[in-house]
Amino acid sequence: MPDTPFWTQDSLEEIVSSRSKIMGAGVWAAARPDDRPVISFAGGLPDVPSLPSEELLRATRIVLDQERREALQYGGTFGPQPWREAIAERSSGIEGIPLTHEHVIVTAGAAQGIGIACEALLDPGDTVLVESPTFPGSLRTFVSFGATIEAVPMDEEGLRIDLVEEALKRLADEGRRAKLLYTIPTHQNPVGSTLPLERREQLLELVREHRVLLMEDDAYGELWFGDEAPPPSLFSLSGGELAIKVASFSKIIATGLRLGWNLAPPTFITRMAALRYDMGSSPYLGRVVAEMIRNGDLDLHVGRLRDIYRRKLDRLCAAVEEHCGEYVSYLRPEGGFFVWLALQPGLSAIEVQRVANEKGVLVGAGPHFFADGNATQHLRLAFSYTPIEEIEEGAHRLGEAIREVAASSAIK
Amino acid sequence: MPDTPFWTQDSLEEIVSSRSKIMGAGVWAAARPDDRPVISFAGGLPDVPSLPSEELLRATRIVLDQERREALQYGGTFGPQPWREAIAERSSGIEGIPLTHEHVIVTAGAAQGIGIACEALLDPGDTVLVESPTFPGSLRTFVSFGATIEAVPMDEEGLRIDLVEEALKRLADEGRRAKLLYTIPTHQNPVGSTLPLERREQLLELVREHRVLLMEDDAYGELWFGDEAPPPSLFSLSGGELAIKVASFSKIIATGLRLGWNLAPPTFITRMAALRYDMGSSPYLGRVVAEMIRNGDLDLHVGRLRDIYRRKLDRLCAAVEEHCGEYVSYLRPEGGFFVWLALQPGLSAIEVQRVANEKGVLVGAGPHFFADGNATQHLRLAFSYTPIEEIEEGAHRLGEAIREVAASSAIK
Repeated sequence: MPDTPFWTQDSLEEIVSSRSKIMGAGVWAAARPDDRPVISFAGGLPDVPSLPSEELLRATRIVLDQERREALQYGGTFGPQPWREAIAERSSGIEGIPLTHEHVIVTAGAAQGIGIACEALLDPGDTVLVESPTFPGSLRTFVSFGATIEAVPMDEEGLRIDLVEEALKRLADEGRRAKLLYTIPTHQNPVGSTLPLERREQLLELVREHRVLLMEDDAYGELWFGDEAPPPSLFSLSGGELAIKVASFSKIIATGLRLGWNLAPPTFITRMAALRYDMGSSPYLGRVVAEMIRNGDLDLHVGRLRDIYRRKLDRLCAAVEEHCGEYVSYLRPEGGFFVWLALQPGLSAIEVQRVANEKGVLVGAGPHFFADGNATQHLRLAFSYTPIEEIEEGAHRLGEAIREVAASSAIK
Repeated sequence: MPDTPFWTQDSLEEIVSSRSKIMGAGVWAAARPDDRPVISFAGGLPDVPSLPSEELLRATRIVLDQERREALQYGGTFGPQPWREAIAERSSGIEGIPLTHEHVIVTAGAAQGIGIACEALLDPGDTVLVESPTFPGSLRTFVSFGATIEAVPMDEEGLRIDLVEEALKRLADEGRRAKLLYTIPTHQNPVGSTLPLERREQLLELVREHRVLLMEDDAYGELWFGDEAPPPSLFSLSGGELAIKVASFSKIIATGLRLGWNLAPPTFITRMAALRYDMGSSPYLGRVVAEMIRNGDLDLHVGRLRDIYRRKLDRLCAAVEEHCGEYVSYLRPEGGFFVWLALQPGLSAIEVQRVANEKGVLVGAGPHFFADGNATQHLRLAFSYTPIEEIEEGAHRLGEAIREVAASSAIK
């Protein structure tokens, strides 16, 4: 092959799309494994030992035995009907409203679920409201569609509805209009908060009035640790009318499946399906998951995961209190994968992250999660992936890092 | 749920994207099975009995046993490296040029491969050249991106290069420029033709001069039936410089996997990966396919498929000659899934399709494959999916339909 390529990084700028010009060549790749014996609180990844490989193999065998013909052929852009029906039936129970396959589109995980909603809804220059902080992967998707992002602050209970109202009124005054409001109301990423029922109802009133569609990211909704489930979803509370609820098998089965589903009013489901150029998600994998739903393996597995993650959270809270207690504060989440640590004023999250990394413990730094790069003194600790026996040592190293930064910042 | 939905088909027009307005609510769904005992030459679907379910199950067991941790976690937007390496090594042999994982992005099938290339390249109003007739699914994708399509006629050997040159010059005169030229040079869909080596070289000269990128759809390239492989791909002949080659496991393993790959210059691979919001194709399924590549099962299977499809083609040609001979002509393809029948002048393809359908045999009608709806007297017969023992009866029914239409059209 020639030494100088015909299309160079520069010359291809003349041929690429506006979207490609926005995103450039930067790729949000899966993190490379660190060769050092590090302890990671960094990624929102599931617990490894409990990944249900036996259940997957059992379901695969049944599907190849009984549904081989259907599983190995095109399944359509909505997803195969038996799979949509299995999801609708399970979701009817979770949401407490009657749902049919018409409310369901199967996706390649929540990330694609968000993407296809954007394809159906966003033009360059459209405004998207997001709570702040939030999941940076979703911000990246909105930006790639050319959207203008308006960040609305949260407090300890989650999204500030009074500030949503303020933003919507301000936009209306400016002759602008938000098409979407993106929120993670339950076990929020990165903050861990769960929006109380009253705020959910206030939010629904507001979006109904302003004709804004809710994009409700519910990747963590089923992973609650208390005796009671969290409040109903925004999708459920609006009778399935005012939200696209984005859900995923990533956290309750495995991220490597790349499978999820959106619940939405059937009119929006059809619009999303019409724009899929990928001819739908794998009916083969889909039927494997449908079999895990039907035979009860999935619900059993979710029950086991709740126990596993609650124990990890207990361990992390105890260890953080012991090793970092004097420098941090946090609210214990009621579910999900994350603890959001507020560092004592004067301590830089970026600096603590850097020193912690040197000491062999990986954490997320607050500014990463703000649309405006807003610097706060927060760290995100994901307790989901870390082996339970490493959690205490991880917190110990983090404590050392914090004390080192505090000393050099002359904080006592 | 309320009787009148909040977002109706009409009211949601105020909130959807321009792309959604182009595509509306129409969905290109998988065909529903016909309840009648029909014989289908309609869809480009693989042979069912040979779908390699045992090989898939064996590879799945090995992957869950040996690569469980990696297979069940995020694999990145390019696809997992071992999988890209397995594809690159196999492709180096097929293409005859040295390729590395940097030339490969894993996709959810050729349809997504085409879609992500469009995302990286097309803005609304951009011009795409296509050969005509062509695969309507790809036309649909180009249209959804707001592209202007310019159709270039083919002859018996495939794309007319003189007319490509004419079109490129005309566009240049008009101050326009084609970004992409979409072609299926090998075992073309729907025509079955394979572009000769000389035309391939002329085409490469033209696109180099006009700085147009080739999008080479090679879904059927490996399925050749003669003693010799078809000419090298456009990607290969350009030293991997001037084309994005779109390939798929759909026709050589199963459409239900939703897995394929693009080969392209690394700069374009990166641009495509940067715009994927789905966090990549399933590393779980990908590692299963990589195992089938490594253990030789895939190449063995492709060899078996060549035999199966050659026998089906032989059977179809004999049956068409016997039952439809006086009313049709065709060129025997050297591979792929399709025979393109030219009906005697005066016979309407749409009418023959309708009557054939009534008689219990499904065929594709020519106009469906033209960007301009250009009416021609052609039928597309897919011989891939039809059980071999049904092919003769299918051709018999088609012959009856043709004679009936000929009689009512007063053709003898």
